[in-house]
Amino acid sequence: MDRLIEAIDNTQNPSVVGLDPTEALVPPQVVASFADEVRDSVESPEEIESAQLAVAYFEYNRTIIDAIADIVPAVKPQIAMYEALGPAGVDIYTMTCEYAAQQGLYVLGDIKRGDIGSTAAAYAHHLNGVGDFDPWHEDAVTVNPYLGTDGITPFVEAAAEADKDIFVLVRTSNPSSSELQMLDLADGTKVYEHVADLVEGWGAETIGSHGYSRVGAVVGATHPEEGKALRERMPHTFFLVPGYGAQGGTAADVAGMFDKQGSGAIVNSSRGIIGAWKKSGKYSESMTADEALDLVASSARQAALDMRDNLRVAVYR
Amino acid sequence: MDRLIEAIDNTQNPSVVGLDPTEALVPPQVVASFADEVRDSVESPEEIESAQLAVAYFEYNRTIIDAIADIVPAVKPQIAMYEALGPAGVDIYTMTCEYAAQQGLYVLGDIKRGDIGSTAAAYAHHLNGVGDFDPWHEDAVTVNPYLGTDGITPFVEAAAEADKDIFVLVRTSNPSSSELQMLDLADGTKVYEHVADLVEGWGAETIGSHGYSRVGAVVGATHPEEGKALRERMPHTFFLVPGYGAQGGTAADVAGMFDKQGSGAIVNSSRGIIGAWKKSGKYSESMTADEALDLVASSARQAALDMRDNLRVAVYR
Repeated sequence: MDRLIEAIDNTQNPSVVGLDPTEALVPPQVVASFADEVRDSVESPEEIESAQLAVAYFEYNRTIIDAIADIVPAVKPQIAMYEALGPAGVDIYTMTCEYAAQQGLYVLGDIKRGDIGSTAAAYAHHLNGVGDFDPWHEDAVTVNPYLGTDGITPFVEAAAEADKDIFVLVRTSNPSSSELQMLDLADGTKVYEHVADLVEGWGAETIGSHGYSRVGAVVGATHPEEGKALRERMPHTFFLVPGYGAQGGTAADVAGMFDKQGSGAIVNSSRGIIGAWKKSGKYSESMTADEALDLVASSARQAALDMRDNLRVAVYR
Repeated sequence: MDRLIEAIDNTQNPSVVGLDPTEALVPPQVVASFADEVRDSVESPEEIESAQLAVAYFEYNRTIIDAIADIVPAVKPQIAMYEALGPAGVDIYTMTCEYAAQQGLYVLGDIKRGDIGSTAAAYAHHLNGVGDFDPWHEDAVTVNPYLGTDGITPFVEAAAEADKDIFVLVRTSNPSSSELQMLDLADGTKVYEHVADLVEGWGAETIGSHGYSRVGAVVGATHPEEGKALRERMPHTFFLVPGYGAQGGTAADVAGMFDKQGSGAIVNSSRGIIGAWKKSGKYSESMTADEALDLVASSARQAALDMRDNLRVAVYR
């Protein structure tokens, strides 16, 4: 986790911008501006909508990356938003990861993969590529723990080989996450606490120079008390904290997920930053695509600065 | 689940062939035969290996699909094997799904996705596409339950809209699956039993004309006793049973996962069928690519027939 921790230190900003584009988040004139280009490139008319969204997503992402690359350490593209468009969207996902990496950002691929051993080893190529070829351009990926150790080990090995990291789901930010994660076990702990102990163990042999292993944990901002307890329970596990902003988590909620030195966690915001233009009060349908993208950029930058400053107050206190 | 059940009935064969290609499973002369074609199509030399494997995977899959399409109801491509090659592999995954569907097979995409509500809705486009465009060509997908109901509901809705299905991981076939799934809960049940009850509930409003809902369960062949108990516990839940063959499950092991009418489950074999050529005793390095593919085809067909006949004896008894 050293590279991420150093990137956070360099920017004095423990936040990550979620690049989760949706049709509703991209200004419509930006999508429309690609109509001609796309019409000539698709094989059949029904592909136009998804192909046009895909190229619009990339333009939107590039605009946001350019606007924030000097003030945030990392981005977290959510692959689901791209998969929703089919393979053309997956291409845009990798192009987004590559572009972000080229701008010096740590790229956290939110892919939440998880499978049995031999299949997990295939997914782990997200991290260690094919020969010298790295098609995905991710510095870390998120992983689901439901399959147990043999579904995790291949990712840990690939991460160690490629100087990368993983983040395992422990306590997710969504309302119904409690249905499984909060179940009471016969031994008096809860399921997510048991997973937390597994995660701390999975990372034990990969602890870096800042005291954290290559195996991080996903802990939702919407669970501040549990997050604080997990911080104690998992001393060598770095936290990825989603659920800030649009999902309801505040800087105060996440403060307890950091360690005494103000390290140990990175907080994600997606819509709150990439969709900030919608709440700017400055958008107009009469804007050109370039004007709309300028507004996306300035709004995202301001929202990222606000989040950074709020976290600095709450965390680096 | 009606379409799958009817496909099984038409073939009198409750088995599905896992299309999980790896470099070790494709005869090397088949991979080599694409060297020239690939060299001209890639942007940089380091992409050659993955691009060449990707096209070889498609040729291999097509050969197998052609060899088995009249005797099996379904195929299950494992997307991890394709993602391992990057976006070029994902293209091949969708081409494989499309080709299999064109040959009349039910296509079960083993993608094991799972995320919070809004993100799960994005993944659910695997099933309901983008407008009139269906980029993925899957009839069903596998889903991970760790996030709870709001991560499942979007898939159920998309499945209902598109006349498709999902299969939720309940009791997976791998050795360390017990670390979470077998934990004892305070109420006396185990985690996987609790998940089983959730799954039965998630499907309750989508029960089809054969008594099974659109929400199936993944139950490993390596857990015959638990599978039998789950069959009782989940009367409206169709089972996808991995772990047969190479992973150790036998026809006798899976028999208890079927209902009294011999329905209620479909058993997957991957390596045991697509890699049968390696155990045929007929392979030689001096074969041409076409000769090797012919051996892949005849071996896969024979293995699929053997599996079908073994299952018929054990299940339709």
